[in-house]
Amino acid sequence: MDEFSVNINAGNGYAVHIGSNLTAECGKIISQVVGKCRAAVVTDSNVEKLYLQPVMKSLEDAGFDPISFVFPAGESSKNLHVLSEILESFADNGLTRSDIAIALGGGVTGDITGFAAGVYMRGIKYVQIPTTLLAAVDSSVGGKTAVDLSSGKNLAGVFLQPSSVICDINTFSTLAPDIFADGAAEAIKYGVLTSERIFDVFERGEVRESIAQLVSECVAIKGRLVEEDEHDNSVRRLLNLGHTIGHAIENLSGYTFPHGHAVAVGMVMMSQAGERMGFTENGTTDRIEKCLIRNGLPTYTDYDPEDLYNAALSDKKRSGDNITIVVPKRIGQCELMTIKVPELFDIISLGAQR
Amino acid sequence: MDEFSVNINAGNGYAVHIGSNLTAECGKIISQVVGKCRAAVVTDSNVEKLYLQPVMKSLEDAGFDPISFVFPAGESSKNLHVLSEILESFADNGLTRSDIAIALGGGVTGDITGFAAGVYMRGIKYVQIPTTLLAAVDSSVGGKTAVDLSSGKNLAGVFLQPSSVICDINTFSTLAPDIFADGAAEAIKYGVLTSERIFDVFERGEVRESIAQLVSECVAIKGRLVEEDEHDNSVRRLLNLGHTIGHAIENLSGYTFPHGHAVAVGMVMMSQAGERMGFTENGTTDRIEKCLIRNGLPTYTDYDPEDLYNAALSDKKRSGDNITIVVPKRIGQCELMTIKVPELFDIISLGAQR
Repeated sequence: MDEFSVNINAGNGYAVHIGSNLTAECGKIISQVVGKCRAAVVTDSNVEKLYLQPVMKSLEDAGFDPISFVFPAGESSKNLHVLSEILESFADNGLTRSDIAIALGGGVTGDITGFAAGVYMRGIKYVQIPTTLLAAVDSSVGGKTAVDLSSGKNLAGVFLQPSSVICDINTFSTLAPDIFADGAAEAIKYGVLTSERIFDVFERGEVRESIAQLVSECVAIKGRLVEEDEHDNSVRRLLNLGHTIGHAIENLSGYTFPHGHAVAVGMVMMSQAGERMGFTENGTTDRIEKCLIRNGLPTYTDYDPEDLYNAALSDKKRSGDNITIVVPKRIGQCELMTIKVPELFDIISLGAQR
Repeated sequence: MDEFSVNINAGNGYAVHIGSNLTAECGKIISQVVGKCRAAVVTDSNVEKLYLQPVMKSLEDAGFDPISFVFPAGESSKNLHVLSEILESFADNGLTRSDIAIALGGGVTGDITGFAAGVYMRGIKYVQIPTTLLAAVDSSVGGKTAVDLSSGKNLAGVFLQPSSVICDINTFSTLAPDIFADGAAEAIKYGVLTSERIFDVFERGEVRESIAQLVSECVAIKGRLVEEDEHDNSVRRLLNLGHTIGHAIENLSGYTFPHGHAVAVGMVMMSQAGERMGFTENGTTDRIEKCLIRNGLPTYTDYDPEDLYNAALSDKKRSGDNITIVVPKRIGQCELMTIKVPELFDIISLGAQR
């Protein structure tokens, strides 16, 4: 089985390791980047049953002194209360500034563990072991950590680059189809953004065969954008393709609509709006829709444009009176557009026309 | 009345303004460093009654669009629950990445507001308006933000340098004597650390007359150490003089023993231990004790050395098996010493001998 390693020059620099059976080797990999110390593994109640034991064993074998913290699985755990419990657990176990946190799981686990690592004693090191395709191609790279607030998703967090990312593609085989599809949406996004090749693989439905290589290509694209703009002030914002409307859908659904599914709908709507404005190459929306459907993803929402607009207003991408959106030019090329906040309503309305 | 301005070259660089009646001019001062935006003023229930109204008026006059958040006064509010309420309030009021937070109050307000600013949307700008001597000479400069966890003080937080610090010395006149003394302890600490001149002023009891200049000198000392070591890995740790034992005392008292008072006792004990080890110039402890007493501060604790040692173990200054302590050489000169954790028990025991 192929193994890939992608170096990211952000933070102190780190490698993303992609391959088979890496959870069982995580202790060895981590010992290459941090000295002997205590390791606090944070995971959720689903992933605990599948992978906590082998990870703890690998850490013990490598001479770490691991502890673990398990929280209830689900986006509803990504809040300041669970963050607080994780921090208290670190303190109760006597973790010091030279110890590390390890996020074992999907995006929720990575986001909240990274946040905890970023604020515990004002920052300790952390390692990501993503166990979903979504986390592998999206949240495990880039150093954005977060929890949700009542008024919106990811409204509190810090920038903290991991010390290492260990992506075991075998873990994807235990994912339910819709959870796998959720990650496929973000991978297809990279295709629309900069790589028609990645898009083609998803369009042809040949994903499972080349998953390690696809993940490494997505990570490399994200890595280049993050290196250029670590704190999300310019080109990194391209990664938000589909996210302004996507976040609004998630928000309106009370975060029951999955992130990747929401991004899929958001991409279609932005492409549709782009075509109506004469900005996007004709046929782009059609191609995106077919590709998403083939990969088990939705392409439209029943939410009203006005509701979507109001929900989108709490988005971080807003800055004063302006908001920056991402519009496809064609498959493999997108552009940033900064518009006045009220213009977003027109864009959403155009995107909703079928 | 004298006005002083000290520039700190940390973060993006910022000025500390020290003078009379500056709260009423804060809007004008803040408009020099940030553009027109929304300003969220965070303060506690005591300071609200005294200074919130003039600060809001000054911000309105300067064209800001201020909102305010008031939390119950006291160290017990410096927790993740109140942090969460502040963040929800920012979000409910639609604060965006280009808006600012303003901390109006003492150390608790500054620490928790800075933390909120550092994580809201992964970081917005903030301004400190310290209203206690302690906050003016200590927490308002340096960019350390924090809340307490159950197992210890300041165990969660971020590094975030303010955009401006506005220190109105008139606010000190409303402080109760023991609150003023609390700040005097930290100012005396700067004297013991690097400036016999500052120490002399406190030793002679001529503080109130030259308070603006004293504050500016303390801020300049702290600024130099922070510039050299923003993230607290080396020389900045000198600022922890008296804090290892001080934090243990605060912890054992359930945070009812005031911070500066605890630091005062910690300084005496470190100096005492230093003299017993032959490291500290004879007579130093005696001089520190007399100076502290003259300024209304305690010089000893009844807590058992073993209890102090155990309480000190949760301290952030611990790193794996080592802990770095600060020991006076003489008045105006101190040194960092990294010792094995168990040796701290001997130091505390020596320091407790009278």
